[in-house]
Amino acid sequence: MKKLINRVDDVVSEAVRGMRIAHPDLLEINLSPTYVVRRDAPVEGKVALVSGGGSGHEPMHAGFVGLGMLDGACPGEVFTSPTPDQIYECTRRVSAGQGVVHIVKNYTGDVLNFEMAAELAQADGIEVQEVVVNDDVAVQDSLYTAGRRGVGATVLAEKIAGARAQEGGSLSEVADVVKKVNENGRSMGMALTSCTVPSAGKPTFELGEDEMEIGIGIHGEPGRERMKLEPADRIVDRLLDAVLGDLPFRSGDRVLAFVNGMGGTPLIELYVAMRRVGEALEEGGCQLERSLVGSYITSLEMAGLSITLLRLDEDLRRLWDAPVHTPALRWRV
Amino acid sequence: MKKLINRVDDVVSEAVRGMRIAHPDLLEINLSPTYVVRRDAPVEGKVALVSGGGSGHEPMHAGFVGLGMLDGACPGEVFTSPTPDQIYECTRRVSAGQGVVHIVKNYTGDVLNFEMAAELAQADGIEVQEVVVNDDVAVQDSLYTAGRRGVGATVLAEKIAGARAQEGGSLSEVADVVKKVNENGRSMGMALTSCTVPSAGKPTFELGEDEMEIGIGIHGEPGRERMKLEPADRIVDRLLDAVLGDLPFRSGDRVLAFVNGMGGTPLIELYVAMRRVGEALEEGGCQLERSLVGSYITSLEMAGLSITLLRLDEDLRRLWDAPVHTPALRWRV
Repeated sequence: MKKLINRVDDVVSEAVRGMRIAHPDLLEINLSPTYVVRRDAPVEGKVALVSGGGSGHEPMHAGFVGLGMLDGACPGEVFTSPTPDQIYECTRRVSAGQGVVHIVKNYTGDVLNFEMAAELAQADGIEVQEVVVNDDVAVQDSLYTAGRRGVGATVLAEKIAGARAQEGGSLSEVADVVKKVNENGRSMGMALTSCTVPSAGKPTFELGEDEMEIGIGIHGEPGRERMKLEPADRIVDRLLDAVLGDLPFRSGDRVLAFVNGMGGTPLIELYVAMRRVGEALEEGGCQLERSLVGSYITSLEMAGLSITLLRLDEDLRRLWDAPVHTPALRWRV
Repeated sequence: MKKLINRVDDVVSEAVRGMRIAHPDLLEINLSPTYVVRRDAPVEGKVALVSGGGSGHEPMHAGFVGLGMLDGACPGEVFTSPTPDQIYECTRRVSAGQGVVHIVKNYTGDVLNFEMAAELAQADGIEVQEVVVNDDVAVQDSLYTAGRRGVGATVLAEKIAGARAQEGGSLSEVADVVKKVNENGRSMGMALTSCTVPSAGKPTFELGEDEMEIGIGIHGEPGRERMKLEPADRIVDRLLDAVLGDLPFRSGDRVLAFVNGMGGTPLIELYVAMRRVGEALEEGGCQLERSLVGSYITSLEMAGLSITLLRLDEDLRRLWDAPVHTPALRWRV
């Protein structure tokens, strides 16, 4: 196992401390239990957003904490759900009395632990609305999940709902935006290589030198099909066929395309794929209105990519464009 | 060779077209010869900045084209210098009559071709000032380079000098800022794995399962030493010792620390390293004033990192903080 780490048990806490050192203007951290919050949390008069999940998907979620996105993030151990206590303490820390939205990727452990945390918070008088994201069209049930997995649309939901909260949306309005993104977003991923969980010390799965896995999960869970490696355009078309067919997207739809690297794939390859995504959308009569290209929801050093399409309307586009200031996403148009 | 590409010969042009599709608000591209420019180039009344070099280092340089950074970028084939024609045409395209600064990483081919391009442009009456960046302390001469190689400080120079041009600096003022960053910045890198150039089809070098290369170049050129893998903190200390000793940085210095991923290293590991960088600077009495963590000057899918330290003064810090709006770096404080 070749990794730039110290002790396996310290990876998450050391990375979180590194984030604090790199972004003291944006973040505060708590180490026991571990969570990351906006430096100005709780933000007076604002609905708070909390997300979390196993580590190893960086910059998700702690890299999305800041103005216009998340108020708090709870990183579990690598590929391990955060504990109810962790989520509960983070929820209390960011709550400003306007309610807290929990954005939860659909993995059974995450869903259970966020539910328990919400109950604890509610017992303290904090109103919590939980929204589960399940945008991965690859498989119905999976190794760690009943139902579809939550993947790339989570990034978009956190940005867009974060903007709604920032502009003063109510608890149910912010939760509704998360639901809307989930309803209008679909994703699928693929891998060229496995990842290696530090505590396991060996690759999660094996792939032959000429093989790829289509429909991979972000923990290396099996996808739809293991097959021979193909040219990038053919791979993109496979993913897009599944994604476009599922919603279904229609000619004339306005779309945000998110080409996401799995962690070990260089940016030049993501742009090669983006080119084909743009062409294919045009062929299908969809309008590419916004795009995001980079490694935002990753699986440690796995090589591969995922594609997320989100159907936009005026409101979603406006919220996407709204200012954001986090370690990983930052703009002010 | 496992890559998300189509034909080997099309990688660069397809990636550039993907950039255009993803960032139509920021970029225009030319395909023959290949270059990427600000959509609003030439920018009236402004000194223009052009950089370039072999592809495979994305987002450098095309990802740094936009407001407050580069006006144009010339991507060569993978790890191959752009041609004089390419640089000359790009220089003409962005020139607004105030002169053009060429920022050149110190590789012999790049230096020669930028010089020839500058002569061609000067024959057209365009004033060009070239600044060579050579911040890599690892080795004195190298496989493709006489003298020290240009690496991470190039990113910082393009941001900082781009800000100086954006606020109305003269040709010599902008060139002087590049020189100042180069004089006050030092870098060193390391690799856990090789990269594979698409046209070669096999890894550039071999490293054992328990080995790393300290002082690696961004094309996989040999560094200082091949040795057994060590914990991240020890690796960071090795790089910092070389970097801090070279300038030398002194107690009380204000520093920008740039922890850069080589392309295949996940962000969680970069933050583990950032933590040690912050601690070590504090131990050495340096003040960490700004930081940048991510994969900005890469070597395809190589796993590893580099560390760049830049000694800041008021002026450099102000220019670093100034607005930037490019595909890869974007903020407005």
